[in-house]
Amino acid sequence: MYGECNHPADSSASCNRLGFLQKNNSLEERGMMGSSFKERASKNLLSCDNTGGDAHFRRTENDFSNMYARDLLPAKNGEEPTMQFLLEVVEILTTYVRKTFDRSTKVLDFHHPHQLLEGMEGFNLELSDQPESLEQILVDCRDTLKYGVRTGHPRFFNQLSTGLDIVGLAGEWLTSTANTNMFTYEIAPVFVLMEQLTLKKMREMVGWPNGEGDGIFSPGGAISNMYSVMIARYKYFPEVKTKGMSAAPRLVLFTSEHSHYSIKKACAALGFGTENLILLSTDKRGRVIPADLEAKVIEAKQKGYVPMFVNATAGTTVYGAFDPINEIADICEKYNMWLHVDGAWGGGLLMSRKHRHKLNGVERANSVTWNPHKMMGVPLQCSAVLVRERGLLQGCNSMCAGYLFQPDKQYDTSYDTGDKAIQCGRHVDIFKFWLMWKAKGTVGFEHHIDKCLDLSGYLYDKIKNREGYELVSEGEPQHTNVCFWYIPPGLRGLPDGQERQERLHKVAPKIKAMMMESGTTMVGYQPQGDKVNFFRMVISNHAATRSDIDFLIEEIERLGLDL
Amino acid sequence: MYGECNHPADSSASCNRLGFLQKNNSLEERGMMGSSFKERASKNLLSCDNTGGDAHFRRTENDFSNMYARDLLPAKNGEEPTMQFLLEVVEILTTYVRKTFDRSTKVLDFHHPHQLLEGMEGFNLELSDQPESLEQILVDCRDTLKYGVRTGHPRFFNQLSTGLDIVGLAGEWLTSTANTNMFTYEIAPVFVLMEQLTLKKMREMVGWPNGEGDGIFSPGGAISNMYSVMIARYKYFPEVKTKGMSAAPRLVLFTSEHSHYSIKKACAALGFGTENLILLSTDKRGRVIPADLEAKVIEAKQKGYVPMFVNATAGTTVYGAFDPINEIADICEKYNMWLHVDGAWGGGLLMSRKHRHKLNGVERANSVTWNPHKMMGVPLQCSAVLVRERGLLQGCNSMCAGYLFQPDKQYDTSYDTGDKAIQCGRHVDIFKFWLMWKAKGTVGFEHHIDKCLDLSGYLYDKIKNREGYELVSEGEPQHTNVCFWYIPPGLRGLPDGQERQERLHKVAPKIKAMMMESGTTMVGYQPQGDKVNFFRMVISNHAATRSDIDFLIEEIERLGLDL
Repeated sequence: MYGECNHPADSSASCNRLGFLQKNNSLEERGMMGSSFKERASKNLLSCDNTGGDAHFRRTENDFSNMYARDLLPAKNGEEPTMQFLLEVVEILTTYVRKTFDRSTKVLDFHHPHQLLEGMEGFNLELSDQPESLEQILVDCRDTLKYGVRTGHPRFFNQLSTGLDIVGLAGEWLTSTANTNMFTYEIAPVFVLMEQLTLKKMREMVGWPNGEGDGIFSPGGAISNMYSVMIARYKYFPEVKTKGMSAAPRLVLFTSEHSHYSIKKACAALGFGTENLILLSTDKRGRVIPADLEAKVIEAKQKGYVPMFVNATAGTTVYGAFDPINEIADICEKYNMWLHVDGAWGGGLLMSRKHRHKLNGVERANSVTWNPHKMMGVPLQCSAVLVRERGLLQGCNSMCAGYLFQPDKQYDTSYDTGDKAIQCGRHVDIFKFWLMWKAKGTVGFEHHIDKCLDLSGYLYDKIKNREGYELVSEGEPQHTNVCFWYIPPGLRGLPDGQERQERLHKVAPKIKAMMMESGTTMVGYQPQGDKVNFFRMVISNHAATRSDIDFLIEEIERLGLDL
Repeated sequence: MYGECNHPADSSASCNRLGFLQKNNSLEERGMMGSSFKERASKNLLSCDNTGGDAHFRRTENDFSNMYARDLLPAKNGEEPTMQFLLEVVEILTTYVRKTFDRSTKVLDFHHPHQLLEGMEGFNLELSDQPESLEQILVDCRDTLKYGVRTGHPRFFNQLSTGLDIVGLAGEWLTSTANTNMFTYEIAPVFVLMEQLTLKKMREMVGWPNGEGDGIFSPGGAISNMYSVMIARYKYFPEVKTKGMSAAPRLVLFTSEHSHYSIKKACAALGFGTENLILLSTDKRGRVIPADLEAKVIEAKQKGYVPMFVNATAGTTVYGAFDPINEIADICEKYNMWLHVDGAWGGGLLMSRKHRHKLNGVERANSVTWNPHKMMGVPLQCSAVLVRERGLLQGCNSMCAGYLFQPDKQYDTSYDTGDKAIQCGRHVDIFKFWLMWKAKGTVGFEHHIDKCLDLSGYLYDKIKNREGYELVSEGEPQHTNVCFWYIPPGLRGLPDGQERQERLHKVAPKIKAMMMESGTTMVGYQPQGDKVNFFRMVISNHAATRSDIDFLIEEIERLGLDL
């Protein structure tokens, strides 16, 4: 009864040439101009040869080889080619989505830069003066995905942002289609309001009364952290905006030696100088020692410097450590310093009744960075900076450009957000997040977070007494980070000393390279301080299960056996 | 022969409930686990009741009201619901795309903030603890688009970024699906190389020998301009990175009084102070007067300040003016200042043999901002900053975070771009642009640009002698900007003076408000200096035609008749 495709079901390359939408049936096309994508697909599908009681597709090829971008909308009669082309693209993308969740698919198909630059078969990165056919464009789409990395694969553990949320993905597709800009209510009315409501909800979770305050979505946690430093400076020394840093005394800032490098980048960029960022010592679990902060504040004051800003990290990048916010807040209040909490990685735990205590004291912060694109599985990019005092963002950044923020518009222009930002145009990062929140509810995020933390507990229990493993920091994981050395059998007998350290330093890079070349899984590694290269396992992917953790350990042992 | 839908063809809301993919046929589903999206659609479509020789759909409803996000992948048996859900989303999006190009569709369906916040029928922006059904999520997607603004509509002229490029859109959908991050080759091998090749191509078009130099895609022109100021400071005073602005003398920067406000924002953010940004006078066409620059440089030096940076704008925001780059470059060389060209808006003209002369001298710049998301019709966001001297970006921004940029990876880590950026994670903005370039060729961009400039010439010719119009700046448009006052009949007899000016100031806002409320078209307005509110018409949408220009003029006259 069904028309059968005479090609392997998963061969989307050949399937493409057998696309079921037909060309050159212009009468039919004309009749369909008002019809929907699904109807269009269905009508074409049903134009089957029904003689003999058996339905067959008309296997007319979609001849994309003779179609070009100029044939698509807004071209005359461009609607049909447009729908055909988008249907093919969606076919490629949904095939990719399905395979992403299929553990028999590789995480990546690794090639070196020179290999991709020389050009793989049929895939050439070079741009030219003349257009390529849409057939080539579709091939390029397929190849781009083929040679990329499946960051949503259940065995991709390489970054803090992993996973492929289907509702979030749908949200991003819609955002791209709406193709607008966050700077004014005028051209993004719905998105601007969604941002406002979502930020309020996030501030409620931080614990600020009635969710009051301000905030903005920015292009990533580094920029969110940069905002916090700018706003703090504006609060204490507003004249720097007009007069520059010479209007302020020598300002110093404090952050953990384990904090994200974006605080340092902000100090370089904003004119403080990286030397005026003072690194704080941490305990064995990677948490700032409050007494060290106070000692360094006093020392700075004795030198005549002005301590202005403290960053407390909620979930450090490598160890996943949570700085003791309450103790740090006490010191900030005592010395009149701005307290920023960098919860880019750990902020998501605020959604979990079980784990949010790790951020106790966050409500005392003056500003908070929180990246839903990390622990909450929202597609990249989605980062918010929240500010407790209303008006500072605007005061710090506003330039009142008359051509964009006209005061004499017919609507309430307090909804125009552009002048709060350091950007002019600003990408719509809110919709996917808002849509996911609607679809999952707060309880859905909570479930996701609790599950990921359970998994890291499972990994920790699995390796803590396992032969060949040494944990890098003490105690149970605070976040989903589990940092460990794998000691290959050949190193296990060696006495601790320089030779062992040097050899151990090379283990993680070698195993990682083999992982990538075999394409089975990916996990990060790095040295830290005087510690040689170790693996940093993190879990933020809602597709990961205990079996994937087991697989990772087996794979490390398989690849590391002979090192 | 065809199955017929018993609902209006364009009613996607009712169509949704008649989706052709069926639920609860688990045996069939199991057999389809390996099949493609199109096959899946086709098999479902063809599972028709063929008795009596007539094919009918089985009209089983997709019961999204009982489906939730948790039923989608990675849920067990989640593949079928995932494909169903994504198909419905694509149906909504393609319907939107088709309507965007349909002139009988409104540009927007305007509502005030309080109206949307109170909740429209079935559309509630509030977030809650419990999940919503996928049916509600699909309704929310539809409503989000319904109450938004069609920035791709042929009659949307409100911003510098307009239009909806189908290949670019496909590129964004793919980018969202790949959901990765530009910071390392490791997780974005193809995108990193595409960025590298595309930046080189852009530098070739700027005219730097062999396209050498450096660059990065950033989250918009304001950030690209901020990069240029940071890099210039690093070039002349590298110790500011570590020691802060106190390590430099008092630095001054120069830019046109008509330049984009992002230069001023950068001066505030980076610690220069906005008072140290000196505004340059312009001629009647809005171009910087080079003699004014030189005079102000000399004056600053006499005060003991150090002139460091000059921004020349290639395509100002309001007038579309091109500053005389060569004359400005002469002065920069003479006084050893960094020359930045802000071509966010005008950079696209480099693709046109006919118009690129307007940027003559750009090859003498030290850095260039160029936003393909403006004049070249690439979806938002897509902005590049190009730097002539290699190594400065890296030197200025690198912090060498060991956990991200490990030197002992198995591939050539010079391809890791993250340490050049002020961001850590960085959205993939390159793919849509690369794909469009492949699909259109350089000649396609050239055609697009020439066509838009022709259209602005058409508008200029149409209104320059037309009753009721006054042009704001002299001469033919330099870019697609055409700035004009519309003088309603009731004002035409008034003598020039305060009363006329005050009344004229209110004309553009009133007409704009009526346009938005009737939803027919959108065009920007603003005051500038001592000039009262005027319309700024810009054309970057490849869907716009002369008839749309005619429509705009008719609409202004219709709405402004009785003012």
